[in-house]
Amino acid sequence: MIATNPIDVLQALIRCPSVTPAEGGALDVLTELLEPLGFDVQRMTAKAEGTPDIENLYARTGKSGPHLMFAGHSDVVPVGAASDWTVEPFSGEVRDGMLYGRGAVDMKGGIACFIAAYARLVAKSGAPDGSVSLLITGDEEGPAINGTIKLLQWAAERGERWDACLVGEPTNPDELGDMIKIGRRGSISGFVTVHGVQGHVAYPHLADNPLRAVSAMTQALMYPPLDQGTENFPPTNLEVTNIDTGNTATNVVPAKGRFDFNVRFNDLWTADTIRDELLRRLDIAARNQELRPGRDPIRYDITWSERPSHVFLTRDDALIQSLSKAVETVTGRIPKLSTTGGTSDARFIKDYCPVVEFGLVGQTMHMVDERVAVSDLETLTVIYETFLEQWFEHANA
Amino acid sequence: MIATNPIDVLQALIRCPSVTPAEGGALDVLTELLEPLGFDVQRMTAKAEGTPDIENLYARTGKSGPHLMFAGHSDVVPVGAASDWTVEPFSGEVRDGMLYGRGAVDMKGGIACFIAAYARLVAKSGAPDGSVSLLITGDEEGPAINGTIKLLQWAAERGERWDACLVGEPTNPDELGDMIKIGRRGSISGFVTVHGVQGHVAYPHLADNPLRAVSAMTQALMYPPLDQGTENFPPTNLEVTNIDTGNTATNVVPAKGRFDFNVRFNDLWTADTIRDELLRRLDIAARNQELRPGRDPIRYDITWSERPSHVFLTRDDALIQSLSKAVETVTGRIPKLSTTGGTSDARFIKDYCPVVEFGLVGQTMHMVDERVAVSDLETLTVIYETFLEQWFEHANA
Ligand SMILES: [Zn+2]
Ligand SMILES: [Zn+2]
Repeated sequence: MIATNPIDVLQALIRCPSVTPAEGGALDVLTELLEPLGFDVQRMTAKAEGTPDIENLYARTGKSGPHLMFAGHSDVVPVGAASDWTVEPFSGEVRDGMLYGRGAVDMKGGIACFIAAYARLVAKSGAPDGSVSLLITGDEEGPAINGTIKLLQWAAERGERWDACLVGEPTNPDELGDMIKIGRRGSISGFVTVHGVQGHVAYPHLADNPLRAVSAMTQALMYPPLDQGTENFPPTNLEVTNIDTGNTATNVVPAKGRFDFNVRFNDLWTADTIRDELLRRLDIAARNQELRPGRDPIRYDITWSERPSHVFLTRDDALIQSLSKAVETVTGRIPKLSTTGGTSDARFIKDYCPVVEFGLVGQTMHMVDERVAVSDLETLTVIYETFLEQWFEHANA
Repeated sequence: MIATNPIDVLQALIRCPSVTPAEGGALDVLTELLEPLGFDVQRMTAKAEGTPDIENLYARTGKSGPHLMFAGHSDVVPVGAASDWTVEPFSGEVRDGMLYGRGAVDMKGGIACFIAAYARLVAKSGAPDGSVSLLITGDEEGPAINGTIKLLQWAAERGERWDACLVGEPTNPDELGDMIKIGRRGSISGFVTVHGVQGHVAYPHLADNPLRAVSAMTQALMYPPLDQGTENFPPTNLEVTNIDTGNTATNVVPAKGRFDFNVRFNDLWTADTIRDELLRRLDIAARNQELRPGRDPIRYDITWSERPSHVFLTRDDALIQSLSKAVETVTGRIPKLSTTGGTSDARFIKDYCPVVEFGLVGQTMHMVDERVAVSDLETLTVIYETFLEQWFEHANA
């Protein structure tokens, strides 16, 4: 396989069935590619009770600053019903200009393009004046406990410091050049149980229907809207993801009701302040329930997702401009600087250095027939090469 | 067994394990008791596809009017965990002045007291000037398809006509003499499915969360209150009995949500008008959901319980006064004339003649250790006897 050809590299990676938590040979392929390019490749296995061991990879070339990190993941989500695919999902087959395979866009494609870009840069003008490293985890699609967060810690303990990071996740909604991610909303989930008093619907004064409170509390979480958005972020959005009771008797008032919600919050909030606001709303709604004289107020328990994702916004103009200009130069399109969408491992990296995200078109990610246009692989490789040139130029200026 | 002794009669009935749909020997016991008292006893087995056959009993004494019907059921609910009972639930054992057993208050006790009352009346002053019949079903606690409704039809087809009916269900919340039922609220249940669009919580603009609508629609059903009650009826009350989604992924917006409700409505409504009002509220709430431009409005399906219970109020003063005075004379208490509580077979009888309900204290009905005070059995027997005297006196005046 030729490192400068992103199609070759991507096919080799797709043929490794690295469904989380399996390494699947993907890190071996990377090692074989990176060592000839001058990288010092290290493998790090992370372990935690109750989770499978995960193999991660950290590779660096260069000894001095400035130091640019490329971050990504070699693991992929399951293929689902393999028989629904047009091609074998781990074959990397090309049909009608599209390269099919699980991980094609999320995000073995991004890794392949970055390696090809670096190889081309070195072939054209030699190694850049500084350092480049790849931080590749095998636990992005899984619980993310033994992945990026531990790999960063492990590298930092060995003295690694970075000046900037590019994450190669698919960021473009429709076409290559649409969107760079320069931050991410925070995310936190809540799990609520409301305790009522069971009874017969014909004797409501002897019961306390927890679903009255569930209805009122879910309304209170959603209305009024938490904010209207900020300069860089969309409005905070809360979705009730589940309401469950499990009572099928229409003449019975159930003893309890449950609901879950997830909120994606912008930079007007922290995980703590949004939690406080939601608790305030839940408390008022629960207290406002019509209570019978002499009855206890509606009681509820709430637990929160263990590790909320914190909101962040990258303010490194040189980094953002190098990437944005590279996209514009190559595609002729001015990418939107966005903070929308789901969380990514950028939320961990932002504690070490400024981070931006740009990769392929995400439309088919996690779906049957995940695929990437061969022409997009070439374009993204040129964008990454241009970005590398511009970033080092800036950083060494 | 001596027919004038309600304890004897009740014990004989409790020893028949007539858990719906089983006859359990209870109707045989009644036949043995009623024939010597001059009743013509007929058994009627009702059948319907998909339900078990049910044995019912109709017994009449007397050939001319006025004609009083006593209605009740010989079937009982299951005992639950028999080991939780203080006594064997079909033993009819007496401990500390309480007679224990499934059906003790609901409502073999009521039947026993009525038979004893009639036997005493005949012993004291001969058969009343008119007719008395017992309409006893074995399908009150079950689906009620092969019970009172068919038995009434069967008897009416044979020329039976009644002037009034006393139902012997337990009507007293705390003490014998508390409450006569002179009507019942209507009841109808709705089953709603709300159809949304599944998606990822981070991309709410690509999804339509059906739980937003579920929350708003359940609120709209409950608020504002449907009415404030009427002279004879409590306010109409709606309880949401179930909300189910079955989505455990906190990052997923579910495709659909379900909820069920039951409404107990008063004489301001009919089953049709209350259904219309609830549909109106649901439609407005569904329409008011924030819809994304270009998306279809939230769609929902609703089904209703097949056979709503209709609201009714008995306006026969002679009937109500005979019963009320009998209660007052015997207990010294003025019973409340109420329309509260669940439905009963009175909802079917009201189409044939005026109907009132009075029986034992309902506190332990359907529970472990269902039981009745022996002294209450004696008191209710005297009340029923007094009622029989007064009603026939009125009716023949
Ligand atoms: Zn990814
Ligand atoms: Zn009953």
